[in-house]
Amino acid sequence: MGSELRLVLIISFVSVLVFSTSSSPLPRFPRQNRARIQLFGEDRNDYQYETKYFSQQLDHFSFADLPKFSQRYLINSAHWTGASELGPIFLYCGNEGDIEWFATNSGFIWEIAPKFGALLVFPEHRYYGESMPYGSKEEAYKNATTLSYLTTEQALADFAVFVTDLKRNLSAEASPVVLFGGSYGGMLAAWMRLKYPHIAIGALASSAPILQFEDIVPPQTFYDIVSNDFKRESSSCFNTIKNSWDAIIAEGQKANGLQQLSKTFHFCRALNSTDDLSDWLDSAYSYLAMVDYPYPADFMMPLPGHPIKEVCRKIDGASSDASILERIYAGVSVYYNYTGKVGCFELDDDPHGLDGWNWQACTEMVMPMSSSQKNSMFTAYDFNYSSYKEDCWNTFRVNPRPRWVTTELGGHDIETTLKSFGSNIIFSNGLLDPWSGGSVLKNLSSTIVALVTKEGGHHLDLRPSTPEDPKWLVEQREAEIGLIQGWIRTYRLEKEAQFPLLKRSW
Amino acid sequence: MGSELRLVLIISFVSVLVFSTSSSPLPRFPRQNRARIQLFGEDRNDYQYETKYFSQQLDHFSFADLPKFSQRYLINSAHWTGASELGPIFLYCGNEGDIEWFATNSGFIWEIAPKFGALLVFPEHRYYGESMPYGSKEEAYKNATTLSYLTTEQALADFAVFVTDLKRNLSAEASPVVLFGGSYGGMLAAWMRLKYPHIAIGALASSAPILQFEDIVPPQTFYDIVSNDFKRESSSCFNTIKNSWDAIIAEGQKANGLQQLSKTFHFCRALNSTDDLSDWLDSAYSYLAMVDYPYPADFMMPLPGHPIKEVCRKIDGASSDASILERIYAGVSVYYNYTGKVGCFELDDDPHGLDGWNWQACTEMVMPMSSSQKNSMFTAYDFNYSSYKEDCWNTFRVNPRPRWVTTELGGHDIETTLKSFGSNIIFSNGLLDPWSGGSVLKNLSSTIVALVTKEGGHHLDLRPSTPEDPKWLVEQREAEIGLIQGWIRTYRLEKEAQFPLLKRSW
Repeated sequence: MGSELRLVLIISFVSVLVFSTSSSPLPRFPRQNRARIQLFGEDRNDYQYETKYFSQQLDHFSFADLPKFSQRYLINSAHWTGASELGPIFLYCGNEGDIEWFATNSGFIWEIAPKFGALLVFPEHRYYGESMPYGSKEEAYKNATTLSYLTTEQALADFAVFVTDLKRNLSAEASPVVLFGGSYGGMLAAWMRLKYPHIAIGALASSAPILQFEDIVPPQTFYDIVSNDFKRESSSCFNTIKNSWDAIIAEGQKANGLQQLSKTFHFCRALNSTDDLSDWLDSAYSYLAMVDYPYPADFMMPLPGHPIKEVCRKIDGASSDASILERIYAGVSVYYNYTGKVGCFELDDDPHGLDGWNWQACTEMVMPMSSSQKNSMFTAYDFNYSSYKEDCWNTFRVNPRPRWVTTELGGHDIETTLKSFGSNIIFSNGLLDPWSGGSVLKNLSSTIVALVTKEGGHHLDLRPSTPEDPKWLVEQREAEIGLIQGWIRTYRLEKEAQFPLLKRSW
Repeated sequence: MGSELRLVLIISFVSVLVFSTSSSPLPRFPRQNRARIQLFGEDRNDYQYETKYFSQQLDHFSFADLPKFSQRYLINSAHWTGASELGPIFLYCGNEGDIEWFATNSGFIWEIAPKFGALLVFPEHRYYGESMPYGSKEEAYKNATTLSYLTTEQALADFAVFVTDLKRNLSAEASPVVLFGGSYGGMLAAWMRLKYPHIAIGALASSAPILQFEDIVPPQTFYDIVSNDFKRESSSCFNTIKNSWDAIIAEGQKANGLQQLSKTFHFCRALNSTDDLSDWLDSAYSYLAMVDYPYPADFMMPLPGHPIKEVCRKIDGASSDASILERIYAGVSVYYNYTGKVGCFELDDDPHGLDGWNWQACTEMVMPMSSSQKNSMFTAYDFNYSSYKEDCWNTFRVNPRPRWVTTELGGHDIETTLKSFGSNIIFSNGLLDPWSGGSVLKNLSSTIVALVTKEGGHHLDLRPSTPEDPKWLVEQREAEIGLIQGWIRTYRLEKEAQFPLLKRSW
């Protein structure tokens, strides 16, 4: 049975989801929850905040009679210089997950708050974490009707309403707001500058692939970068992975092949299909490319520094009689079991779970993903919108609007657009990050600047500084601080010119 | 019965609506329909266009399962130089009424189209004219649920989707779009620059009171300007009007007073209350101030040039034994019966009609309106949000969001905002127009400019040129043409720099 492996991959930033036309149409999610728990255990003590809730309109753009919902936000005012000093407000644009997870993984913002005398706020994105419409995740995720208000535009409006109200309550209407965000949160930060230029004075959009839509960048971009990340470490490693997909299928077609594969890869339960294994590996490689940080970190998983190098060392360095699949197992164990504590691996154990990013990917966040025969180490695949749409319909009973994001939020001809529209955005990207291919990698104007680091991974700059930080990372963060200082200085000078009596010690 | 006259006035740009707490809580509409028919009879032949329809999402910002609707648009491509020449697209942002009415009252755009080689499109605003969700006005206006998608944000998104699709169909993605709009349409044009900077390269926002919200301008602004317009013609005229309100109430309190008033003012049917008469007069004065054009025109009603001067001539020039109410009647007849063909006057004959602007005023477009004892010729009134809200609830079962517009579309600190955000907006205003008080009257940057004319009325610059045009009006339009030419030139130079092969004869 030569079942053809044609995967439609909907890739999230914190969880790789797989729509497989040949097996389950439902998305599955790797280790996110486990990773989160580990992180909280480690980081919580470093970041002190109050948790509060803000009553939000469920639909900002209609007057349908809908119940309001509670948006959670974290706030820290320990360093704020206050409204009378025009103390800035740093707002992290919460993305597709628990806001505590993002807040505690954004050490950079916490570190620079004292220098700026900034108030920190981390509003959570609707439909994630505790910010559930209709009172609970179960109700919010019930069906396409209850999910229908999970959109980027509503989330941006949430931020605008939230911060406007916060400023009013603090009598801090004149305080400048600076936006931060990583990954989808970075896209939100950049889009806030586009859609709400009156709400914030600037945005640090880290690893924000705002161009990963429609036909703006080639659909192969993501997987080509993942593949290149492996190739640069070792071309034999790259080739081993490239050849492994056929080996997996061949093995799976044997009598007891799935059982044997389950054993080779130490799964707790027998595999149902080779697709499950391929997806599991695909996830690992994609995340490894994202978090190929230069020092040990544990954003997704506890990992060593330069984890791809480690993976390839295992793949290439296996004993000469190791099979190709044994090599692959040795490599991927670096990702899934670096601590060595995992006895056996679980595939996603909630095949019927509905995750928010899947909904978003099936409505607005349609990011075409292919993998090329030529450059990629993955199975060749051409993005097929029809089957993508069909999968979305089968999963959610919703039709995507693949052209809506570019209409609403731009993207085509971003250079002319951003140049003539706006100001004060930093697009920071590390070129190891496969999402960098869909981001802005060159300066668009004197105030819309790209900070690109060759060795950087997925929003590395937002992480806390460490003694192991390479020089280029230290310099990147210094550049970011300098630019933000410049925005605030300019803003204050303009205020001062408008209201001469306001002159202070800024 | 000393019934106190406390009116909450919701003022539209094409129809003055009156919420009277003491009488009918339902809005009433003066002559709009009749005026429209007269205009069409006169103007239709001058403007040739095709009428087409575009299928729109009812809700752009959610994925609720809603029926699409047909948005009407008018299109003229007679002068378009085409996609290959980067021929510009002039888009009029349809406002609160039949798009044919606005298109045929925007002669300026038609006149300059040949000079620019421009494609003209006039998309209609949802819920007006023929662009009715749910198939008919009756269904669309049925209740708060069906009306709930009548919002400014949805209308802006309609324009963005419409023009993006149009450009794609014409393979004219690179053609620059210039926005035009008068009054609420001008607000939409300016807001398009704020919310969709990637969709259009600039906007002529004529008589666009984007600051008439919340506490940005004093609530007395509108009626103070109306009053000043009368006072500058004649202070005795101003005083006669100022004294007439008490005279009306006094007359109404007499036995047979309402009957006598109906006779004095030539109503076809007896008045039910003096409020009805006061509202009718209030409407006339407000519109007279808006359309106090320097030559005969018939935007709202057929009127002579300088109609306020005419009104005051009648009021002041009545025979010396004329009563104050007879004077008022003589004056207001200039507005309601300049042609002399009206035998008797009808008050609004559809007290239960629900008009779209009333809904908008009761949801987002909350423009506080007061009239001051000191400067105004109207009855003193302090805007009272509680009773406004109550009227909205009684009428539509909807609660206004009075702070939403400033959150979503800015307004507070417009100077800093627009200066640091954007480019290419012309705010044109005539100071006779009572809406000018809520608009932008000074240059905010080198590309966000105010063209202010002392003698101008409500979006006079958008009207067709006439032989009687005063010099300042001719100059104003020349300045507008020059600025638009500059935007297009800059855009083309940038395109040329990006794609050197595109060099053409621009």
